[in-house]
Amino acid sequence: ADAFTVAGRTFASRLLVGTGKYADLDETDAAITASGAEIVTLAIRRTPALTDPEARKTRNLLDVVPPEKYTLLPNTAGCYTAKDAVRTCRMARELLDGHNLVKLEVIGDEKTLYPDVSETLVAARELIADGFDVMVYTSDDPIVARRLEDIGCCAIMPLAGPIGSGLGIQNRYNVVEIVEHANVPVLVDAGVGTASDAAIAMELGCDGVLLNTAIANADKPVLMAQAMRHAVIAGRQAYLAGRMPRRRYASASSPMTNLPF
Amino acid sequence: ADAFTVAGRTFASRLLVGTGKYADLDETDAAITASGAEIVTLAIRRTPALTDPEARKTRNLLDVVPPEKYTLLPNTAGCYTAKDAVRTCRMARELLDGHNLVKLEVIGDEKTLYPDVSETLVAARELIADGFDVMVYTSDDPIVARRLEDIGCCAIMPLAGPIGSGLGIQNRYNVVEIVEHANVPVLVDAGVGTASDAAIAMELGCDGVLLNTAIANADKPVLMAQAMRHAVIAGRQAYLAGRMPRRRYASASSPMTNLPF
Amino acid sequence: ADAFTVAGRTFASRLLVGTGKYADLDETDAAITASGAEIVTLAIRRTPALTDPEARKTRNLLDVVPPEKYTLLPNTAGCYTAKDAVRTCRMARELLDGHNLVKLEVIGDEKTLYPDVSETLVAARELIADGFDVMVYTSDDPIVARRLEDIGCCAIMPLAGPIGSGLGIQNRYNVVEIVEHANVPVLVDAGVGTASDAAIAMELGCDGVLLNTAIANADKPVLMAQAMRHAVIAGRQAYLAGRMPRRRYASASSPMTNLPF
Amino acid sequence: ADAFTVAGRTFASRLLVGTGKYADLDETDAAITASGAEIVTLAIRRTPALTDPEARKTRNLLDVVPPEKYTLLPNTAGCYTAKDAVRTCRMARELLDGHNLVKLEVIGDEKTLYPDVSETLVAARELIADGFDVMVYTSDDPIVARRLEDIGCCAIMPLAGPIGSGLGIQNRYNVVEIVEHANVPVLVDAGVGTASDAAIAMELGCDGVLLNTAIANADKPVLMAQAMRHAVIAGRQAYLAGRMPRRRYASASSPMTNLPF
Repeated sequence: ADAFTVAGRTFASRLLVGTGKYADLDETDAAITASGAEIVTLAIRRTPALTDPEARKTRNLLDVVPPEKYTLLPNTAGCYTAKDAVRTCRMARELLDGHNLVKLEVIGDEKTLYPDVSETLVAARELIADGFDVMVYTSDDPIVARRLEDIGCCAIMPLAGPIGSGLGIQNRYNVVEIVEHANVPVLVDAGVGTASDAAIAMELGCDGVLLNTAIANADKPVLMAQAMRHAVIAGRQAYLAGRMPRRRYASASSPMTNLPF
Repeated sequence: ADAFTVAGRTFASRLLVGTGKYADLDETDAAITASGAEIVTLAIRRTPALTDPEARKTRNLLDVVPPEKYTLLPNTAGCYTAKDAVRTCRMARELLDGHNLVKLEVIGDEKTLYPDVSETLVAARELIADGFDVMVYTSDDPIVARRLEDIGCCAIMPLAGPIGSGLGIQNRYNVVEIVEHANVPVLVDAGVGTASDAAIAMELGCDGVLLNTAIANADKPVLMAQAMRHAVIAGRQAYLAGRMPRRRYASASSPMTNLPF
Repeated sequence: ADAFTVAGRTFASRLLVGTGKYADLDETDAAITASGAEIVTLAIRRTPALTDPEARKTRNLLDVVPPEKYTLLPNTAGCYTAKDAVRTCRMARELLDGHNLVKLEVIGDEKTLYPDVSETLVAARELIADGFDVMVYTSDDPIVARRLEDIGCCAIMPLAGPIGSGLGIQNRYNVVEIVEHANVPVLVDAGVGTASDAAIAMELGCDGVLLNTAIANADKPVLMAQAMRHAVIAGRQAYLAGRMPRRRYASASSPMTNLPF
Repeated sequence: ADAFTVAGRTFASRLLVGTGKYADLDETDAAITASGAEIVTLAIRRTPALTDPEARKTRNLLDVVPPEKYTLLPNTAGCYTAKDAVRTCRMARELLDGHNLVKLEVIGDEKTLYPDVSETLVAARELIADGFDVMVYTSDDPIVARRLEDIGCCAIMPLAGPIGSGLGIQNRYNVVEIVEHANVPVLVDAGVGTASDAAIAMELGCDGVLLNTAIANADKPVLMAQAMRHAVIAGRQAYLAGRMPRRRYASASSPMTNLPF
């Protein structure tokens, strides 16, 4: 079928989710289950169960997303330098018994949470040299995306909009540029606000979508998780199905070029 | 569950489809089945099986969408006057043993296939007086939509874009205005080009989506039919789930009002 | 030069302005002067100077926009029926010594202030039969626009967005459809919020733009009036100059059709 | 008045233009004159008059834009590495008698002509250390823009869309982010296709706009140059005037947040 492979692992679901901002562990559990996600990202620095053995003694996030059932994707949210991000990844690998798949984020600004692409390039090189499989959060700059692929990142994860904004895909041109040139999976990471945003990302040719706030901050997170599951499938199928051409009129064959709509 | 009721009939699916532009009856069959649609619209004047008993002697459209299995929605595509549309509906009712649910279209222009709302109002009044249940194709003018509801139409079906154009929803403002004021179902009819367009229509609060070309003219119609099925569910669930607010930044609570994005 | 003719009168400026919502007569005066407008519209029912001889005894709106200097365009704002609008126009003609140029508005909803196109058609027919030159406020429905031209309106004035909303042009497709088929001037009336909105209206091929709130409710109305003056000229010149084609790349000649941006 | 200062020089016009793609020197002359531009950018590698003394013996580009009349802005178009760009700037300074104002471009991809921001940062550092005033072409990444300002660039020039594409501003969010945080002038460079695009850039708060293809590739370049002149003024005045708030209805004060239009 239409499986998706990253870093040698193959998945049926193209929706990746996070674990932040939920009311409690039960809601986290219900929403993630409803989403159908197989890959779940966790902020290393904000997940005590990952870094503090004490935290594992009571019910914790790893009970909700057990490594036996999910592919964990530890991420470096909150790191502002390459050095910090690399150290954080190494800590996670140690605590997770050698797990070497990570999502690299080197943040450049605390408001937009946009990446610092220079530091991201430095950290990616170092992590890859150290044996990590690096899925990388980046801007939507196609030149930077190519560079990150060239140095060995196993997935490119451009932002669609600011993390936690729900503003949707700001620049379709750049997403298409990245998708068309990439030889590794491209996943939209950040900016999705509602189901149609996720569908659009997939229709642009992305291999997957990662999101968190859009589910966790919906009025009904579990129902929104279901919506996202359907939306990613819908967008993927529409991409593979080859959409009809846009036309000014049903009957006419006048070219659409240069029409202002 | 989240059922949808129109003219006293209740449906699980909120995706309505047409039968035009397919390669052959087999493709029509496969695509409609994949869409999960329960209501299928047929152009009375272009469906020989509806108007010519001879046409029923060999395999025909009614074998693909048998009235026992689907709710047929005969439509007046190709009618340019109220008189013509009314006569066409009466003919269909006679041929379909008293079936009185119709989709009224009175076309005003052969290129855009936009409705003539004046003639549509005249035809709707006459058909309702004559006992028809009228689902009505109209422009996205909220005032006209209200008038059509006032005279007794059982569903308002504004265009999102020109029929067969695939341009998507041109005016979200008007769709929201119509939805918020209507007490009968509102279904986007025309203009949907790909899955995300259908999801957006549902997220705006529409009760359903009717489409044909977006499936029939996709490179792979059956796969696109599946995409549309998921898209309508995704959009509906996202609407019911209550999407997260749009924010400029994840952390800040600055109002979005007046920001140009 | 590039003059604009309506109802036999020719104008250099393609920006028409209203007189509402200003702080006082001085601001009205300064803003209208700065706009360079030659046609000024006044709401008959809200302009005491038009309907009450007493009101002309002290400084009033007609001192700011004297008929010797401006072409007055009395409008029927606030009228909700054809009958009301026709009566209001007749009253204005009497009070303005036979002035027969009017802007017809028949409002259908007090929130959106959208037109009631059915009543508008009735009123337009009656006013034209009675010798008025009717510039008509309407929805952006191209079929209704054609009908209004057919019955003799001397200018078609589709809304770009709701009156007083500043939301900009909601449906470029419809504006282009109206422009391409019209043989009388088409002016965008309502919805303009800032200078670029006015420029876009002109680039779509409109003959002019009418606005009021965008100037009167700007922080600095007089400066915004200047901005609008330049914007209308810019948009008109860009339309006449024939813009460059949209291209995906500077160098390539790949068609833009079906690209999602 | 509302002057614009960069690298210690003050200008009345906020429209900067290039010299490429014109039919001949006369058209170049007429268009640049009509644009009212005071700063003109020239590609060092494509302007023989800048690099080859022989080329100055006959009528050449420097006759059309004499340094006595215009502020020349030599640019490094066609350079793909920092080293190349630095060498090209030094050559231009020598040939132009010590002129040290340059526009730095380090291109990362020959199709999109997007910048390579890593190489751009390297080149900017080196040029600034060598005494150049560097106006810098960059992506719309706000973090990179801040870095370029931090190292001493005298103007930040984010692309609105791909060079020569005419696609308009792809990401308003990023342009606003850059503008709000910058303490040096921000000028949109690349992507403008028609007058309203330039107006929008200015309304977003940019200090100026640089464009070339939109004028040179219009059907009537001189008329489009006039359009751009008016558009930049219109956008600037609208920005300073403070636009009216966007509202759903003229009368109501309901917040616009979370409305889908």
